Amino acid sequence: MVVVHPISGDQLVLGLDLVTVPSLKAALENVETSGCDFVVCPLVHPRYERVPLERNDWNTEDVGVKPPWIDRDDPLTRSGMELRSGQWIEGVVGKLSPWIRLDSTSARTRRLSEVAFREEYELAAHLSLKAVITPRISSADDCANLANCINSVLSSELPTRIWVRVPISFGTGDPELCGEPASERSPWDVWNKIRTLCNSHRSLGVVLEIASELVGKRATERWCAEPVEMISIPTSTFVKNKAGFPVLLKRHKDFVTNMFQSKVPFAVSGNAATTNSAEGAKPYVMFLAHLFGKQPADGHDADDDQYLDYLQSPLQPLADNLEGSMYETFESDPVKYARYQEAVRLYLSQKIVERVVIMVLGAGRGPLVAACLAAAEQTQRKVYVYAVEKNASAIITLRNRRDREPWKHRVKVVQADMRSWKSPEKADLIVSELLGSFGDNELSPECLSSTHKLLARDGICIPQNSTSFIAPICSQALHSNVAALGPSRAHFETPYVVKIRHGVPISSPQPCFKFTHPNGKESHDYSRYAHLTFDVEEDYVLHGFVGYFDALLYGGIDLSILPETHTPKMFSWYSIYFPIVRPLLLKRGEVLDFHMWRRSSAKKVWYEWTVTSPAPIAIHNVNGRSYGMDVLPIS
Amino acid sequence: MVVVHPISGDQLVLGLDLVTVPSLKAALENVETSGCDFVVCPLVHPRYERVPLERNDWNTEDVGVKPPWIDRDDPLTRSGMELRSGQWIEGVVGKLSPWIRLDSTSARTRRLSEVAFREEYELAAHLSLKAVITPRISSADDCANLANCINSVLSSELPTRIWVRVPISFGTGDPELCGEPASERSPWDVWNKIRTLCNSHRSLGVVLEIASELVGKRATERWCAEPVEMISIPTSTFVKNKAGFPVLLKRHKDFVTNMFQSKVPFAVSGNAATTNSAEGAKPYVMFLAHLFGKQPADGHDADDDQYLDYLQSPLQPLADNLEGSMYETFESDPVKYARYQEAVRLYLSQKIVERVVIMVLGAGRGPLVAACLAAAEQTQRKVYVYAVEKNASAIITLRNRRDREPWKHRVKVVQADMRSWKSPEKADLIVSELLGSFGDNELSPECLSSTHKLLARDGICIPQNSTSFIAPICSQALHSNVAALGPSRAHFETPYVVKIRHGVPISSPQPCFKFTHPNGKESHDYSRYAHLTFDVEEDYVLHGFVGYFDALLYGGIDLSILPETHTPKMFSWYSIYFPIVRPLLLKRGEVLDFHMWRRSSAKKVWYEWTVTSPAPIAIHNVNGRSYGMDVLPIS
Repeated sequence: MVVVHPISGDQLVLGLDLVTVPSLKAALENVETSGCDFVVCPLVHPRYERVPLERNDWNTEDVGVKPPWIDRDDPLTRSGMELRSGQWIEGVVGKLSPWIRLDSTSARTRRLSEVAFREEYELAAHLSLKAVITPRISSADDCANLANCINSVLSSELPTRIWVRVPISFGTGDPELCGEPASERSPWDVWNKIRTLCNSHRSLGVVLEIASELVGKRATERWCAEPVEMISIPTSTFVKNKAGFPVLLKRHKDFVTNMFQSKVPFAVSGNAATTNSAEGAKPYVMFLAHLFGKQPADGHDADDDQYLDYLQSPLQPLADNLEGSMYETFESDPVKYARYQEAVRLYLSQKIVERVVIMVLGAGRGPLVAACLAAAEQTQRKVYVYAVEKNASAIITLRNRRDREPWKHRVKVVQADMRSWKSPEKADLIVSELLGSFGDNELSPECLSSTHKLLARDGICIPQNSTSFIAPICSQALHSNVAALGPSRAHFETPYVVKIRHGVPISSPQPCFKFTHPNGKESHDYSRYAHLTFDVEEDYVLHGFVGYFDALLYGGIDLSILPETHTPKMFSWYSIYFPIVRPLLLKRGEVLDFHMWRRSSAKKVWYEWTVTSPAPIAIHNVNGRSYGMDVLPIS
Repeated sequence: MVVVHPISGDQLVLGLDLVTVPSLKAALENVETSGCDFVVCPLVHPRYERVPLERNDWNTEDVGVKPPWIDRDDPLTRSGMELRSGQWIEGVVGKLSPWIRLDSTSARTRRLSEVAFREEYELAAHLSLKAVITPRISSADDCANLANCINSVLSSELPTRIWVRVPISFGTGDPELCGEPASERSPWDVWNKIRTLCNSHRSLGVVLEIASELVGKRATERWCAEPVEMISIPTSTFVKNKAGFPVLLKRHKDFVTNMFQSKVPFAVSGNAATTNSAEGAKPYVMFLAHLFGKQPADGHDADDDQYLDYLQSPLQPLADNLEGSMYETFESDPVKYARYQEAVRLYLSQKIVERVVIMVLGAGRGPLVAACLAAAEQTQRKVYVYAVEKNASAIITLRNRRDREPWKHRVKVVQADMRSWKSPEKADLIVSELLGSFGDNELSPECLSSTHKLLARDGICIPQNSTSFIAPICSQALHSNVAALGPSRAHFETPYVVKIRHGVPISSPQPCFKFTHPNGKESHDYSRYAHLTFDVEEDYVLHGFVGYFDALLYGGIDLSILPETHTPKMFSWYSIYFPIVRPLLLKRGEVLDFHMWRRSSAKKVWYEWTVTSPAPIAIHNVNGRSYGMDVLPIS
């Protein structure tokens, strides 16, 4: 259903990008000795000369000459048996011949390039290589014929991918990397063109090549949304320190450190002297490994990697019963229930009565009940807790816990729908955890509609309110993952819970909908409408919108999943992605007008969303036709 | 695409089937101490009495009474937090309450059973248990309402499966297992009925319970085609030996040893004294482990397990180029090329000429070339080998090998289509390996059509001939795997290469088509027709036909994948499965008439197949509409 990119967890994966490889076996051994994992090497032996000389009379479509190498009897390149197939697959990435120029203005060069391109790709596929890398694109290349040839070979659905080598900048200062004049077009523009012409084929990726000249933060960030499969770092980017060892200058060091977050492999490239021997390569490798080791631990759980860019349907706890393993995962959040306990403690410390009645609405297997009792213990308050839950299987666990200390005689387990439950007394405090990634998307407003009946006049709710936030996002990966679900438009009119890897917000998140509990009214209107305006600071492709929430528990204690204010170490929620059917190219300086509605009927609640500027698109999910949150009849 | 059943490779997976479980944590520890892996335990605490007493006035459809347990405030059973979710998933299989009788003639019992059945299944799903086991079926049960209730809960698509407990025999001799009179219906008949009513739902399985009375070979074999998920062995099946330890009598021992092949878990069941303590259970567990350890090693490769019942499209080496990793796999067969070498050696030892010209047609990366040169070495004959191959990537490897000893000056590498290649001289010997699982299904007859032009007058081919074989097969698993490919009829009109686990031939294989090389004629007719008759020795469901081949290399040296004569340790070929659209129930004593055609057009070759007796079915793959082997134009 969803392709998860191969990633390395907590290790830096390193390769050597070689110019010539006399013995591949020896090269692989060198790679290991120097602490690397793979080798990038030319597919065809350089001895197998195939560079077509340019001649004027070849500049015709009717080439009519068969490739000059077709009758040669010497092997095109090394034997497929030089390595075991496992080594080919794991240890080698192939490079297409550097003379291949698919967008040459010489028809003959172009034709011969096409033949060689297919021949070399098929060889790579025969060897089961993970990928082949194209020669570096330049600002002058049209790239249309490159894209056409890529489409042609990828349509065979072989597993070998094609990675386009793209410099981070077409800049001016670096003769080795870019002998071309500065250009209006950025490398991202060229790549975006190739990708678009190839309809964002899943087997198409980028090798991003670091240059002496770097680019600004926004321009760099854009690559986080692209399928960058490898970062190539030329030895020429390094300088020597006083001891004669290669190091990076600060701006390059910062850039590389930043790129470590993307968890893609790095490959060191350079001339034969530096990369073809373990001794030559080792200092560069050691510097990168050293730099990687100095990264701060990000509290990131390697187990979570499988969820990166993986689309999940949002839970519908009102309509569906949760499994025990989900409860277990939620309960293991190290921060969430501590915050709840702290909020209840603060409330109890300010509430001076003989006996505090607490209702936990949606008690699950009891983590909030436990938090309330612990807070009562801390404050030495006498509390009585009603644990209200509709899931019969969770009720079994609640009743078992109730029969044991410290719950004994302090907890009443109630199997009921919180919306219809008739309580024997009023509550001082209602505690619930009905928040979804977008705040209200698990129907907390509807579920808590009964609070005014259950609460004493001065009673309060925890959380006291919640606010959803939204930002435009550039993420081809998420959009492709939606497309992979099937051809139905409905897939693009549905939000997904997702831990985003390949995506960048185009602008800062803005508040969208806010709900306050209790809202003090007998009859409620939970429909909402928001119109938000975002500035576009750089060229981007818009693939939809990403949602977050922030909730105030009590007295300044909150839960947030906004990137800027995220509650540290809390992992209970990923963000939520609202796709749009057709990606929209946004230009720097434009203004993006976004509209979102929360609508409801007797049976369900749903969102609708659209864009009206810089260009209007169809309203998504009209009348909840593709997605809605089921409101079960009150039982 | 295909569900592969969880299997254990080379280990016996053992469980204890407990009657009462005071503490599940302790029970799991006991299980580990006694050398077991999992526990089978009741889902609901026996204290939670729910057995409905039978009363005459309840025998009405309009029960109108709510279940008597619905208002009880004590927990239905143990807490979901007694174990971590990983332990629930891996370590526990649930049993439905023994009083549940979904096919009771008492309407009230039936209704209460339905409520409890759903409640207990939902609890198991909440705990993420792998499966729940029904009470044992009996010959008297109608089972229609059981099937209805199973369908109802399985339609929720939760991962928890339902396993029906089926005794191996309804026999007479065993009061504990079967207090019922012998029956016309066998347990397989009842199970087959339940499975059919549930449309062979993928989440439905069998727990096969061994009884004192066993059944015949054919009747036992039938279970190999069913989704048996667990084998339950009651302690009452054991007898004590002189030292007082439990052992099995010979017929049971043979039966159990046989069942080990199926690689499903075993569970020991008995009274509390024997199974609820590690000491009680250990002797039984040790005996089974001992028995398992005595099994002869079957040369089985655990890596292969992933391919069991996994459907693969047959290779089309004439139309497609093979990958290097496939060549590598083929080349690693420890027997195949040794047999070829032996055949060539035998030929050369009888061929007294100065220089023997050998042509290897379809040389790949050269394993047959190497075998020929090794045979020449053995016989001290001078040979010259033409290695003919069309795959450009394999040619690279061939040329590299040609440039090294011992190939140097003795091998000519030719990149050509063997059908059109014009050789500079005639061959004494043509060697090829174009055999598919069904012999001719990789188009060896068509590919070798040029041999009469290439061979000297007394030249010969290796292999000299090949014969396909076919047998009717009962395999719900294969049929379901085909159905899972999609709704198109075409999937049932296509053969699949498959290593069969859940399937049994209904009758012995019979020869189908034979091809001889060279056939001595200038123009060839490779179309064939076979009409075969099979005796049905036991009730079976027919799900299609399974094909094999046998090829004579030279002078009595052959390759065979027929079960009875399989070349030892050769793994290059699995069998081939020809499905039929609708399974057909066959009764003992009936005769099965099978027809198969091999037909061809200019573009392709295909098979058609059908059954005419005991009941005719539509001819499958008419005119090759769903499947054909592409014959590329000769290049």
